[in-house]
Amino acid sequence: MTMTPPVGIHILSSLYSCEKVNSLDKKALSEKITQLLHDNQLTQLGEFYHEFEGGGVTALIALAESHLALHTWPELSYLTLEIYVCNYSRDNSVAAEQVHAALVAFLEPGRVETHRIHR
Amino acid sequence: MTMTPPVGIHILSSLYSCEKVNSLDKKALSEKITQLLHDNQLTQLGEFYHEFEGGGVTALIALAESHLALHTWPELSYLTLEIYVCNYSRDNSVAAEQVHAALVAFLEPGRVETHRIHR
Repeated sequence: MTMTPPVGIHILSSLYSCEKVNSLDKKALSEKITQLLHDNQLTQLGEFYHEFEGGGVTALIALAESHLALHTWPELSYLTLEIYVCNYSRDNSVAAEQVHAALVAFLEPGRVETHRIHR
Repeated sequence: MTMTPPVGIHILSSLYSCEKVNSLDKKALSEKITQLLHDNQLTQLGEFYHEFEGGGVTALIALAESHLALHTWPELSYLTLEIYVCNYSRDNSVAAEQVHAALVAFLEPGRVETHRIHR
């Protein structure tokens, strides 16, 4: 028997006119993300942060449920954000939407474009 | 003056009927990914691998150009794969397509579904 893989959700956003990226450091971002994941019962397995010379942060967070990623371009007041959760053991879609919405609210962009992919 | 963020490409694939995930370990995957990124002039900043008890690997690779991620479910002969490159300093779209195509060829799935998002 071939089992059908459960469909997860991948939420990908571009955040424009986001002045807050100028004051975002690794520590502030890491604390916020860790807290939001915990509050929404998602399990963080590990994290990788890189701060670029001249500004910009890349954050990759491994979850038991898949991953979260964030890339900032302070000189463009721009960042991209995504959260991907599989729904293997349970449906994590609501948790993913809540983490995404809370992070967007925290980052205070002027404009957001969001794509949702079911995979 | 507000600069317009350059549009990158995010290629997201689901690989079905992929028997090769059963024999994929962290080491084999890491060596293959590192080689492909190098061959395509993409810059690896760091990597995070997690092997789940009972099978399954999560790989998150930070690139100077954004990231690559892969999640396997051996019990479903299933994996998801993505590569996201910004086109900030130069156009990395061709490199991303080549890494994606080479990884799909390496993984030998029975069927692939791919989405491309320009962001």
